[in-house]
Amino acid sequence: MDAGTWIVESRRLIDQWILDDVAGMGSEKGSVEEAMQYSLTAGGKRVRPQLVLAGGAYVGIEPDRLKPAALAVEYLHTYSLIHDDLPAMDNDDMRRGRPTSHKVFGEATAILAGDALLTEAFVKMAELYDLGFPASGVVKAMGTLAYKAGRQGLVRGQIQDLASERQEISVKALQEIHEKKTGALFEASLTIPAQLVGDDQAAFELGRFGRHFGLAFQMVDDILNVVGDAARLGKATGTDAGLGKATYPRLVGIKTARSLLSEHVREALAGLDPARAGLLDGLLRFAAERTW
Amino acid sequence: MDAGTWIVESRRLIDQWILDDVAGMGSEKGSVEEAMQYSLTAGGKRVRPQLVLAGGAYVGIEPDRLKPAALAVEYLHTYSLIHDDLPAMDNDDMRRGRPTSHKVFGEATAILAGDALLTEAFVKMAELYDLGFPASGVVKAMGTLAYKAGRQGLVRGQIQDLASERQEISVKALQEIHEKKTGALFEASLTIPAQLVGDDQAAFELGRFGRHFGLAFQMVDDILNVVGDAARLGKATGTDAGLGKATYPRLVGIKTARSLLSEHVREALAGLDPARAGLLDGLLRFAAERTW
Repeated sequence: MDAGTWIVESRRLIDQWILDDVAGMGSEKGSVEEAMQYSLTAGGKRVRPQLVLAGGAYVGIEPDRLKPAALAVEYLHTYSLIHDDLPAMDNDDMRRGRPTSHKVFGEATAILAGDALLTEAFVKMAELYDLGFPASGVVKAMGTLAYKAGRQGLVRGQIQDLASERQEISVKALQEIHEKKTGALFEASLTIPAQLVGDDQAAFELGRFGRHFGLAFQMVDDILNVVGDAARLGKATGTDAGLGKATYPRLVGIKTARSLLSEHVREALAGLDPARAGLLDGLLRFAAERTW
Repeated sequence: MDAGTWIVESRRLIDQWILDDVAGMGSEKGSVEEAMQYSLTAGGKRVRPQLVLAGGAYVGIEPDRLKPAALAVEYLHTYSLIHDDLPAMDNDDMRRGRPTSHKVFGEATAILAGDALLTEAFVKMAELYDLGFPASGVVKAMGTLAYKAGRQGLVRGQIQDLASERQEISVKALQEIHEKKTGALFEASLTIPAQLVGDDQAAFELGRFGRHFGLAFQMVDDILNVVGDAARLGKATGTDAGLGKATYPRLVGIKTARSLLSEHVREALAGLDPARAGLLDGLLRFAAERTW
């Protein structure tokens, strides 16, 4: 199967898993589940759960057995979007063409929906034990997810991002923000399957791949915000410049940004075992060349 | 050792653990760790980590081995306080005699400090595996903590609490709020040690004790808010009535509230193994009779 087909099919599978899982939660009016469901079914690309499945393919785990981990990383990602959009943070009214959570449910419920999604990620992770993975692998994977989501990962990225607005920052500082905000969860998503089966070498290789994939992915986002087609992207372009956000195109120009992107693609692939790198290679090239 | 002495000494131990742990995080100006540290060292009673240690005593685990779990439940509790105090939630300016987190650090950092504390709780829990507990016990304990903190525990309690403000609610609805807001984390704190060593019977007994302890504890809080001494409590009294909050004294009167309290104390103790219930019995009576 080529990467393009795999992306479409795995996304369909992940969307179905999410629909099934939120249906099981119930979502009566005014409940936190209603707000969780709203954001989970807003039509994301599902890149992080796809990375879980692709990391699984690298170490020989069937997709179905990774369902709880795939849900966990998407729930964790969705929590971070809801909190990032809050008035006190980026103050975004729209996300993926729909009003943001706090616009629909109010700030209190949006904060709590984020809290509940973050917590639910660990409920899901614990379920991996029931699917027959060794408990030691599950503990490691849970620890990795928490570490990469927390004060040394995602949370740090967001606090540094907020601090950098309307500031002149260095390329190095920008890279650190992206490493935390995007790279950390990409890395965790890819590492988790290897940790589940206790394959330390693969965990190392996949972690390195994930870090560079995350940076490449974020760079494409930055570039598309300048040169992309708003209709195809499903969101406005030029917004980063308007907000005075530090981005690669702004700091080094489009041309250098593109060459940095190629470098991360090369670096990402360099550490993988070529014999089983096919899907990961395809996914990365697809992401690097996307126009949406 | 009598319960009073144990409470003082265990609190000193837990305070020291927290100080050591936050010192290890670093807390430079403007970092999320600075805000985490501020709220963690604001002088709480440390009831939840004490329950972890007391649950440990019930199943024969030395306090030192439970340090990560004790920190985890206190971090999780502190996250819930920071988020509950936010302007969009209870909008509290003061907590334990000091300005609340968002008053000192701003809303964005306060939200992120809460997120980081919630996540750090699971980083800590994963460390229990390094202390020699079986991985299966650690996974179970982590799953319990996530479940009791999330949409079916703490988060649900907070959303129901917000919905009940300035509403007439039933005693049953109030009890459900308390079961989620207080009972859930009390129950988790007590259950975790038993799950770590795979003692299902003790987990059941301790969970039941924790649920009733939580309800009793919350009832004392409600009663003290009416009849307590503000100076001794370190916070204003009469605030619940001012906010139109549903409380036991408001719904059933002080006298019935006191008799419900006695009932929960009795229920809590009824399910324990008397041979090793000494410390738990002492703690509960101490909490039920406290005036601060």
